[in-house]
Amino acid sequence: MKIIVDAMGGDNAPEMIVKGAADAAREYGVDIVLTGGGEDILRRLEKLGYSDLPKGIEIAGATEVVRMDDDPSVVVRGKKDSSMSVGLRMLADGHGDAFVSAGSTGALLSGATLIVKRVQGIRRAALAPFVPGATGGFVLIDGGANVECTREYLVQFAFMGSYYAESVRGISNPRVALLNNGSEETKGTELVKSAYEALKAAGDGGAITFVGNVEAKDVFFDVCDVLVCDGFSGNIFLKSIEGMARFLMRELKEMYSGGTMLKLSGQFARKRLMELKARFDPDNVGGTALLGISKPVIKAHGSSNDVALRNAINQARIAAEANVADKLRKNMRLMGIGEGRES
Amino acid sequence: MKIIVDAMGGDNAPEMIVKGAADAAREYGVDIVLTGGGEDILRRLEKLGYSDLPKGIEIAGATEVVRMDDDPSVVVRGKKDSSMSVGLRMLADGHGDAFVSAGSTGALLSGATLIVKRVQGIRRAALAPFVPGATGGFVLIDGGANVECTREYLVQFAFMGSYYAESVRGISNPRVALLNNGSEETKGTELVKSAYEALKAAGDGGAITFVGNVEAKDVFFDVCDVLVCDGFSGNIFLKSIEGMARFLMRELKEMYSGGTMLKLSGQFARKRLMELKARFDPDNVGGTALLGISKPVIKAHGSSNDVALRNAINQARIAAEANVADKLRKNMRLMGIGEGRES
Repeated sequence: MKIIVDAMGGDNAPEMIVKGAADAAREYGVDIVLTGGGEDILRRLEKLGYSDLPKGIEIAGATEVVRMDDDPSVVVRGKKDSSMSVGLRMLADGHGDAFVSAGSTGALLSGATLIVKRVQGIRRAALAPFVPGATGGFVLIDGGANVECTREYLVQFAFMGSYYAESVRGISNPRVALLNNGSEETKGTELVKSAYEALKAAGDGGAITFVGNVEAKDVFFDVCDVLVCDGFSGNIFLKSIEGMARFLMRELKEMYSGGTMLKLSGQFARKRLMELKARFDPDNVGGTALLGISKPVIKAHGSSNDVALRNAINQARIAAEANVADKLRKNMRLMGIGEGRES
Repeated sequence: MKIIVDAMGGDNAPEMIVKGAADAAREYGVDIVLTGGGEDILRRLEKLGYSDLPKGIEIAGATEVVRMDDDPSVVVRGKKDSSMSVGLRMLADGHGDAFVSAGSTGALLSGATLIVKRVQGIRRAALAPFVPGATGGFVLIDGGANVECTREYLVQFAFMGSYYAESVRGISNPRVALLNNGSEETKGTELVKSAYEALKAAGDGGAITFVGNVEAKDVFFDVCDVLVCDGFSGNIFLKSIEGMARFLMRELKEMYSGGTMLKLSGQFARKRLMELKARFDPDNVGGTALLGISKPVIKAHGSSNDVALRNAINQARIAAEANVADKLRKNMRLMGIGEGRES
């Protein structure tokens, strides 16, 4: 098992990326290819106490770095020798089993689509972050890759999310739900109503376990394992809970600002809420999978530290073993509306 | 000033509605017409210690009640003698200055549109709940009335929200923002990009104060006074923060379940978070205005108690004085894209 890691992507690159990679190699026994400036990487490794390249780690030289403010297309156009482009090409050419990057989401998405390519028949790749809940949590798809969606995209997202939840998160018969403004099947936009109809058919046919529409207020309470929505709604959902968490943190800081007893209980509550807030940063849960791509690509949080990066590499390892892309290829015909019945 | 109140709408009708109305009549010196079963209402008033109708309160008899599970069209079709229909007709016929109901939102929306009618030129009525923030908070429009929107709807929502924030909430030159998946003007769906263009023109022309796109994670931190979005996104936003608040409450309950010190600090934190949660239930902030209707219609929370109902009546009073509908009529031409420049 060989994981390709973008050593130059993210706020804490290359230090924390290199450290996380070295730790992952040791802990999970995976081989790792670090893409980026060779000397730079070696210097960081030296700082970490490695006189030479640690066992199982190699370097693939790349002279450029994709910046957060670069146009996403730069991966395939302007900066072909960037650590991200080099890594994606290696994955495409079979010189590794999965790719992990903490760099620009947009660039990684367009790079993965254009270099590694989508699974044949899949119309769009989607971001599938894990969102924690009261118990279990769920996979959200699409988390923001496609603002404009069709019925067909949403149906494919449902299958992608279901296979991912099953093979990577180990949930058998994942409950797939559609994010809507009400639970009745008459609710929603034309797009959502149409997708509901198609997913119901797929569910009735036994292709997936479709549990119907769910409202955003209920998703944290174990109602589904996969939540399907267009990328625009997915972004509103994720950013709303992120903003709400930030807001509550600030309120609690103020509320606990006076009195020893309050300060004490406040420190306790703040600490716990910090954890909750972190849990609610979807990218912090290891990383966010790019589903629909022919090989595993994991987006690690832009501010990933060594631990987050190590988690993302572990997630990439599990995804490579699970091989969701192959399951998609084999079941492509089920994603045709109605065909589910024949299965 | 006469406010018409649906005495039979909501979970706590008629008791709490009647009490809230009586309190409002006393506190704000407004006249009130209660629509509903006369005997029933008189009995409740008696329980409250009124031997006869309190000063400034009258009753308009209605034999039916719109249920939460009734089809919204029932207000104009099946239950024409419902407390909601009677109240809306009285408002339409000029027998009152505003209407308040804690009944079904869908029924109130369709009833207000078909009986009281929209301001001429306004394409769709919209729900405009107030969302609290770290400082100030903002008016969200559309909060869920129109799942399918056009560029023209969103532009009109921006004006409606701006005039409402100015005349009812007393904010001069309200900052109007567009809810989007990024702050850059290239972001969003075709609909949002198109609305951005139109709102920018209206802003450049001085018709409104347009501050551009905002992400859901930033809206709680005093970035705008009016947040414009389609009703589907508005619902996702509102329900997401509601669900997040409920989730945090539950987590804190567990987190504080052990040890006296923790229990003590927990009771404190829980109480404060309960307040926060209540603040984040948009309908609890008095009521939600239905904008674009030719006369003031306020939706009170379905579970309104006497205090919430009194607040909603006060809000209706202020809205009637502000006369947003008239401001819309006078400035209709500004809502034509580009025309803003001429102002």
